[in-house]
Amino acid sequence: MKTGYNALFIPGPTNMPMRVRRAMDVSLEDMRAPDFPELVTPLLEDVRKVFKSETGQVFIFPGTGTGGWESGISNTLSPGDKVLMSRFGQFSHLWTDMCERFGLDVHCIDVEWGEGVPLEEYERVLKADTRHEIKAVFACQNETATGVTSDIAGVRRALDAANHPALLMVDGVSSIASIDMRMEEWGVDVAVSGSQKGFMLPTGLTIICVSQKALEAHKTAKLPRTYFSWEDMIKLNATGYFPYTPATTLLRGLRESVDMLMEEGLENVFARHHRLAEGVRRAVTDGWGLRLCAAEPKWHSDTVSAIVVPEDADARHVIGRAYERYNLSLGSGLAKVAGRVFRIGHLGWLNEVMLSQALSGAEMAMRDSGIMVEPGSGVGAATEYWRTAAAGSIAQEAE
Amino acid sequence: MKTGYNALFIPGPTNMPMRVRRAMDVSLEDMRAPDFPELVTPLLEDVRKVFKSETGQVFIFPGTGTGGWESGISNTLSPGDKVLMSRFGQFSHLWTDMCERFGLDVHCIDVEWGEGVPLEEYERVLKADTRHEIKAVFACQNETATGVTSDIAGVRRALDAANHPALLMVDGVSSIASIDMRMEEWGVDVAVSGSQKGFMLPTGLTIICVSQKALEAHKTAKLPRTYFSWEDMIKLNATGYFPYTPATTLLRGLRESVDMLMEEGLENVFARHHRLAEGVRRAVTDGWGLRLCAAEPKWHSDTVSAIVVPEDADARHVIGRAYERYNLSLGSGLAKVAGRVFRIGHLGWLNEVMLSQALSGAEMAMRDSGIMVEPGSGVGAATEYWRTAAAGSIAQEAE
Amino acid sequence: MKTGYNALFIPGPTNMPMRVRRAMDVSLEDMRAPDFPELVTPLLEDVRKVFKSETGQVFIFPGTGTGGWESGISNTLSPGDKVLMSRFGQFSHLWTDMCERFGLDVHCIDVEWGEGVPLEEYERVLKADTRHEIKAVFACQNETATGVTSDIAGVRRALDAANHPALLMVDGVSSIASIDMRMEEWGVDVAVSGSQKGFMLPTGLTIICVSQKALEAHKTAKLPRTYFSWEDMIKLNATGYFPYTPATTLLRGLRESVDMLMEEGLENVFARHHRLAEGVRRAVTDGWGLRLCAAEPKWHSDTVSAIVVPEDADARHVIGRAYERYNLSLGSGLAKVAGRVFRIGHLGWLNEVMLSQALSGAEMAMRDSGIMVEPGSGVGAATEYWRTAAAGSIAQEAE
Amino acid sequence: MKTGYNALFIPGPTNMPMRVRRAMDVSLEDMRAPDFPELVTPLLEDVRKVFKSETGQVFIFPGTGTGGWESGISNTLSPGDKVLMSRFGQFSHLWTDMCERFGLDVHCIDVEWGEGVPLEEYERVLKADTRHEIKAVFACQNETATGVTSDIAGVRRALDAANHPALLMVDGVSSIASIDMRMEEWGVDVAVSGSQKGFMLPTGLTIICVSQKALEAHKTAKLPRTYFSWEDMIKLNATGYFPYTPATTLLRGLRESVDMLMEEGLENVFARHHRLAEGVRRAVTDGWGLRLCAAEPKWHSDTVSAIVVPEDADARHVIGRAYERYNLSLGSGLAKVAGRVFRIGHLGWLNEVMLSQALSGAEMAMRDSGIMVEPGSGVGAATEYWRTAAAGSIAQEAE
Repeated sequence: MKTGYNALFIPGPTNMPMRVRRAMDVSLEDMRAPDFPELVTPLLEDVRKVFKSETGQVFIFPGTGTGGWESGISNTLSPGDKVLMSRFGQFSHLWTDMCERFGLDVHCIDVEWGEGVPLEEYERVLKADTRHEIKAVFACQNETATGVTSDIAGVRRALDAANHPALLMVDGVSSIASIDMRMEEWGVDVAVSGSQKGFMLPTGLTIICVSQKALEAHKTAKLPRTYFSWEDMIKLNATGYFPYTPATTLLRGLRESVDMLMEEGLENVFARHHRLAEGVRRAVTDGWGLRLCAAEPKWHSDTVSAIVVPEDADARHVIGRAYERYNLSLGSGLAKVAGRVFRIGHLGWLNEVMLSQALSGAEMAMRDSGIMVEPGSGVGAATEYWRTAAAGSIAQEAE
Repeated sequence: MKTGYNALFIPGPTNMPMRVRRAMDVSLEDMRAPDFPELVTPLLEDVRKVFKSETGQVFIFPGTGTGGWESGISNTLSPGDKVLMSRFGQFSHLWTDMCERFGLDVHCIDVEWGEGVPLEEYERVLKADTRHEIKAVFACQNETATGVTSDIAGVRRALDAANHPALLMVDGVSSIASIDMRMEEWGVDVAVSGSQKGFMLPTGLTIICVSQKALEAHKTAKLPRTYFSWEDMIKLNATGYFPYTPATTLLRGLRESVDMLMEEGLENVFARHHRLAEGVRRAVTDGWGLRLCAAEPKWHSDTVSAIVVPEDADARHVIGRAYERYNLSLGSGLAKVAGRVFRIGHLGWLNEVMLSQALSGAEMAMRDSGIMVEPGSGVGAATEYWRTAAAGSIAQEAE
Repeated sequence: MKTGYNALFIPGPTNMPMRVRRAMDVSLEDMRAPDFPELVTPLLEDVRKVFKSETGQVFIFPGTGTGGWESGISNTLSPGDKVLMSRFGQFSHLWTDMCERFGLDVHCIDVEWGEGVPLEEYERVLKADTRHEIKAVFACQNETATGVTSDIAGVRRALDAANHPALLMVDGVSSIASIDMRMEEWGVDVAVSGSQKGFMLPTGLTIICVSQKALEAHKTAKLPRTYFSWEDMIKLNATGYFPYTPATTLLRGLRESVDMLMEEGLENVFARHHRLAEGVRRAVTDGWGLRLCAAEPKWHSDTVSAIVVPEDADARHVIGRAYERYNLSLGSGLAKVAGRVFRIGHLGWLNEVMLSQALSGAEMAMRDSGIMVEPGSGVGAATEYWRTAAAGSIAQEAE
Repeated sequence: MKTGYNALFIPGPTNMPMRVRRAMDVSLEDMRAPDFPELVTPLLEDVRKVFKSETGQVFIFPGTGTGGWESGISNTLSPGDKVLMSRFGQFSHLWTDMCERFGLDVHCIDVEWGEGVPLEEYERVLKADTRHEIKAVFACQNETATGVTSDIAGVRRALDAANHPALLMVDGVSSIASIDMRMEEWGVDVAVSGSQKGFMLPTGLTIICVSQKALEAHKTAKLPRTYFSWEDMIKLNATGYFPYTPATTLLRGLRESVDMLMEEGLENVFARHHRLAEGVRRAVTDGWGLRLCAAEPKWHSDTVSAIVVPEDADARHVIGRAYERYNLSLGSGLAKVAGRVFRIGHLGWLNEVMLSQALSGAEMAMRDSGIMVEPGSGVGAATEYWRTAAAGSIAQEAE
């Protein structure tokens, strides 16, 4: 019999705040009630702020991030449209696959797993596309499988350098609300998220934000869409309602989680994620003497770290042992990196003490699996960083 | 300030049982954990029993009933396929509309709102279709807008009489788990439901069951699908997992609600819904002297009653007053019947005493709106029926 | 298998508001945390407002109303002290019994069950007590067993007419926060309540408010007390803490329920209780042709109605049937009135539509028990009163 | 703004299991319902098993452990009775104080804080009491303030060696359900617990178990008691009911927590507490080079460790910093040891990974407070012990 709480350190779903959990523990409600728009209208507005969009429109569907991909693609593109993509992990792979299933003409650049969106290559391809056949450029802001964050501002610069009008589509499922997303500043046209990552909710909501340019493209886009279609949403959302029954409990939870993000302050949320993530990285490299899957610091993700185990070890054993014996859920290595990495998700409603569980538990599981890291070395490296980083921020506050 | 609980008597979402609510109030969990299939595999099996399917396959997506329609259509049909439909309410209307958006060749029979699927007409059309161009026949088992239940066994008989091989697609969103659905016996190929009706959960799950014949059709169906696609589900569900992050809190709730349905016994659940509904109908006709939108007893729905207000009255006023003054949510009249009907949903986790709230509240709201039904007349007619019907059932038990 | 919610219409515990329930669904907390007083200090202050005390002190113990009686008695009186009491129901009986167990010299006036505190008799006794041997006068504001509310202002007048210095002790367990209690104006010295009545919480808190005069008496009171002692509370509460571990989940709930009482406004809360109660009384007398246990309108309780069944009927059967068959909990007749009355509690988080459940359910249970009230007669009498009383209040608002 | 969960490592209240939390999130219920005994009767029976009593009787009051002391004392003793006690921490001190307030003739042996019940001294005093004037011997099984566990079997041996008939009263508030209590075997007459420690519930229940010998003593005991009196409880509990409104939500929680204790197995629960505690002790001594307040290993408590900070440090700073900066609640030093110790509670629903939070957080807070323990040293010492201890237990299982 397992005792105690499960320590959940996969890269989403995350540890829901109790406030959010309580906010969702409500009776069901009449989605056609006269006061229902009092929930919907300001919520859509505030979610837009999380995307840092000023002129965009937010859509919320009962669904997942995968549904968000579908919604973004099917509402803006037409069969045979050419798109530029890159693939460097399981999720960027699946996204590419979806585009192919939709019959798009996918130009996909394969990159080593552990690296991110290839900016120079993007720029080169876009410059070469003088006839502007490429209708959309795709960038995965955070590849959850490898713990790699890509430079979305850099993708915008590549587009601008090529003076290219393609739409910019960003997969922000495991980054938005944890890592900075600046839709307006970076000219992102479709940004996709889900409820169970930075929004700290259960799985069940597709959350996307789209630019006016995307809405314009939508008018001529020919890919079929019904459930994830924007037109009915645009019409009904304008009145504070939805075209079909919305997932009201999740919406109530989203209201609370967005309130929490606002109360903490988005920049503080991002800084906290960075501080927590940096502690984990210190544990991995300075403490354990291991390395991250992310090949360079510029690609270090602040929401998930994929840790490469020594050649002669099997990460699956570490993950299995952590779960069975220590009631700790770590993320597994997917596809190409199965057995080679285990992942620690460090996003959502977390603090230093909570996160130390992932490190102490991983240490025990690694040692049980024959990876003889020094006991306490990872935790010590992380806590000492957190402690002094925190002291630093306190010092700053005092100035 | 409104006091007390909102009395929710719309035809879904419903009054969740506290057991279900508690079952969903759980921490998020690792959807790749080794013991996750212990939840998934028996759950899919037991949901199938609710559909009374023996050889079919259940699919559960984060979504809604509308998503279920899309999943059923896009996974079995190809562009230009001819389908036979009928339209007699807002939901059968929207279903037709979806087929048209998918580019199907829709043969739609329009019927008076208040009637159901036109069996003779269906049989006639099917018999005339000697070349079997019609690929699928659609039937809405329960039209939520008008409180009309159609005879699905009759549709099967029509198909058989014509010896027609078309697929039989049934919208059971507001009937399944409340009104009998016998997929196997009636040869239903795709039955669509959602979480927030008879399954007594929040909105957020698309729940469908499909026959082997539908799975066969799926192999050659050409409509595009990604999110709601069956192939990835088939592959992953076989291992007890999902192709993308499932809505675990809702799955935990579904486990509990299916347990409750099994504990009560499906036939008892149906009998209870019938008994409760019949009480409401007695209130409407014997008590208030009003009439139902459903034109004939054979079309009376056991999950929702649409009540026609007198010519000089506006049902919107009744609904508004009920909500604002009495904290009672009644269903509104949609589209064609807006202002002409108000609806009482009587499905899900209900008993006689709970349902009496809808009647006493509706009486007050009607009188406040100038519809001078006798105070207590509806409640009295219903309770006396329930009381004696119950006594009857108790007498039976004693035999 | 019982289906649907249990309709809880006993005179406490009550139907908790979901807001309160959620407020209590929290992790446990450190009762010595530096910010714990941020909960405690304003809460004690605001609870005092519910008692309408300006100079008194509130004490909250993990306990019940019975514990409140003990706390009030043992902290202000000494063995052998003479006290004036009256007995007219099960709870005033038990209170008397407690005083006797404490070795007090109890002068108890027995009154017919159905009547309240005998004001003239009190005045006579007090005037006769020229040597002021009576140290305390006890008055049960609301006798829960018979549905009788007594006139506390009248008891004060009796004391004043006799110019008597005795303490005034009031049992307000089933009245406070539902029926007006004016500690300051009426010169009440100890008022006792519990969490599970007007405060809309689970059982588990003893809530009392005491005057400065009672605190003065406390200094010389000789009855033994430890757990319910005031001195340690006074000392620790002044710092925002408690002498022993407080029931933090209930305190969080109390914070929410007091917020709700304030938001609605105490006078509105009282008016609502009166309006709801009056509807029930109309149902009993005008609808069913039965009578209340409370002998005169001046004694009608706004929190509970005890309904006398016909001579040849047994109220226990009504109650049993209501529970077993209709999932409705009615209050039973206690001691002397067992079998003669059933009780409907109408206090706490209620509205008209909710309360109609008790009436429709009682009608069914009575008819099943051979008490052939007209079906719908009680509900109709109540709803018509509520409807027009509400209209009146709306008319007033419009002026 | 604090982020993440508060890590609660005070020695009670504890981290409630979610199962228990859900079990308490129920509607209020009729405590006079015909099926209420189905909850009460088996619950009292099963709680008795936790005390390892075979012939005793369990009493449950809305209250706390302090109320349990009062109940035990007032129901078995008479004014002026001589009792033997020992004092070596804040809680044994308060217990002594309560006996004095009750007017008992307290023979109290003061022992150094850090030691436990002085067995030889007890034996000496009991042997000297040849006239058996001592009516009861008190022993605090677990002194929460110092983290000292006393040897109750040893106290029984002392009584037996003196052939003394005194009652044996045990304070097991912070031990029962976490540390072995064998009422029957050790001849304990009154054992006192509360809900918020080993029972893993919120504060709010007094839980005591008393022997037949105590029930016999009760018949002649003269101390006054009303609320915490046994006689009414005995009478009503026999029918499955309570003399006054019970705290039903907590009873539902207790049902669940007792179920969990039974599922895990009491011996496994004790072994787990020991293993977790031993890890903390390794952290303190081997990792940090500090010492425990408990003076000898035989007094090491498996539910709480009081850690002595270096002479030049202030434990209050560590505790304050842990709470304010790291959202970690540590127990403070009470009375004599204020500022000298901080405490880590390690009881209830815990596992290794959860408990590592207390260690990593304490390390950060100590270093921030100038106590320069090696980063990771405590966590490393604990985890390595846990890991190998666990391996050992697994090895055993395999045999």
